[in-house]
Amino acid sequence: MSDNASLPFVELCEVGPRDGFQFETTPIPTGFKVASMQRMLDAGLRRIQATSFVHPGRVPQMADADSVLAALPRDERITALALNLRGVDRAIEAGVTTVDLSIALNEQHAADNANTTVEAGVRAAEEMISRARGAGLRVQLGLQTVWGYASPDDTPRALIESVVERFAQSDLESLSLADSTGMASPKSIRSVLDSVGARVGDIPLVLHLHDTRGLGLANVVAALEAGVRRFDTSLGGLGGCPFIPGATGNVATEDVAYLCERMGYDTGIDIVQVAAVSRDVEALVGRPLSGKMYRLVAQA
Amino acid sequence: MSDNASLPFVELCEVGPRDGFQFETTPIPTGFKVASMQRMLDAGLRRIQATSFVHPGRVPQMADADSVLAALPRDERITALALNLRGVDRAIEAGVTTVDLSIALNEQHAADNANTTVEAGVRAAEEMISRARGAGLRVQLGLQTVWGYASPDDTPRALIESVVERFAQSDLESLSLADSTGMASPKSIRSVLDSVGARVGDIPLVLHLHDTRGLGLANVVAALEAGVRRFDTSLGGLGGCPFIPGATGNVATEDVAYLCERMGYDTGIDIVQVAAVSRDVEALVGRPLSGKMYRLVAQA
Repeated sequence: MSDNASLPFVELCEVGPRDGFQFETTPIPTGFKVASMQRMLDAGLRRIQATSFVHPGRVPQMADADSVLAALPRDERITALALNLRGVDRAIEAGVTTVDLSIALNEQHAADNANTTVEAGVRAAEEMISRARGAGLRVQLGLQTVWGYASPDDTPRALIESVVERFAQSDLESLSLADSTGMASPKSIRSVLDSVGARVGDIPLVLHLHDTRGLGLANVVAALEAGVRRFDTSLGGLGGCPFIPGATGNVATEDVAYLCERMGYDTGIDIVQVAAVSRDVEALVGRPLSGKMYRLVAQA
Repeated sequence: MSDNASLPFVELCEVGPRDGFQFETTPIPTGFKVASMQRMLDAGLRRIQATSFVHPGRVPQMADADSVLAALPRDERITALALNLRGVDRAIEAGVTTVDLSIALNEQHAADNANTTVEAGVRAAEEMISRARGAGLRVQLGLQTVWGYASPDDTPRALIESVVERFAQSDLESLSLADSTGMASPKSIRSVLDSVGARVGDIPLVLHLHDTRGLGLANVVAALEAGVRRFDTSLGGLGGCPFIPGATGNVATEDVAYLCERMGYDTGIDIVQVAAVSRDVEALVGRPLSGKMYRLVAQA
């Protein structure tokens, strides 16, 4: 629990075990994953996206999804990503309380990434939401490349707005807006939040920001000041993008937690404990991670 | 010249050749330095801090200060850093039009770094300004660790304000406020700018921000929105801090130029050309730099 109950609370969801580990070329042992996530819970994280239900041939690092989930608490702190109905069924079987869905909002991205269309993805998501809600799971829906795919703002605003309106009544636990390619700026963050905020009703917004062009934390500040209180982050800034060579990962958990602290928000997170996990990941993968704070804070 | 004459202009001063190269363990050949700076001028930089007049035993990378300056244009785009009267005399002899001075504002920093006091540094600066102005040089005065030295905000605000007031009538070309240790946040940037802005008179402010804790670009945004139009940046994010192991450098020239562009400001800088220089520096020093954009943009 927080020591700063009087400060406004910002919830960080740790996505490194999914969005980070999936791109690593060094195999990440299941036991290492589980131990890292236990340590992240101990460090105060209240939500972790632990894995994804994807074909092991396509994403070998996620082949141990069931084993990972079996070793973690079955409570609302642990979520898993599903990209199709089969994934939702696996989430139900695994006993998670919350499933994260994710759909493309940019036609070129939908075509490149999943050989589909935005409309087909929206319809598939409606079916997945129905299946998950029918089994009693909470659902977070993620919209990809909201701030652009091949270039900034090439995802049409009218499409973003219409998709948000379609899902505003869908009994979602939360709606996540992803800057998958790191193309957002503080200016475009504010503009999209104005537009989406007017259409999303009571569903809490989550931002999933990549630091590809270095603007990640500046974008977090813009979103905080626009009222967003939930962010996806990854330990040490793990993560990448398969479409962009050299792209760096999500905004780093330690860096965002430090930023929030300095801006007068409470995250309940012990940065020193998170940094110790990041250093162990760094040692395992054999290269420096892109985060800053994990290099500075002392080992617990 | 800029293609975007209608946009508000933001001036970036390239400090990598001084604040970056001085910490590199690989010797940087004089010819490489000069060629890099010529390329930075070609890329649209309007100001470069080319070197510093320091004892070669203390900072061996700057031992070639005179040769570097002799090979560069003698105009207002090229400046050099001096830390004492001897340095000012060398700047005058070298024929630079503009000399940059820098003093400590934190007693502990003054003691650790130069075995002096803040008051002694202020008096020395007054003498240096007088000497330089007497020889017709423009003077930029830099105040170090404005946002903290050993911990955030441990440099007393009253001291910052009194020093700014003392120099407000000193015929400075500009006043630089340095976050030498990367301890500023958007919140403390705004707070200091409010306070200093009310005391600095007509002297333009320059911010010198390090990205040690990942907040560099978020701090640039806060400063832009508070009206600051000049920033020190370093190619590829070169630089460090001798007092902080693992500390990363200045905010990167390419990243700040990209940020400015996305926020609706013009810097007149060709990011692709700057990135080509950063990649050559990366190859010379044999490690990735901390900037983001230079890895993404294509070679010119």
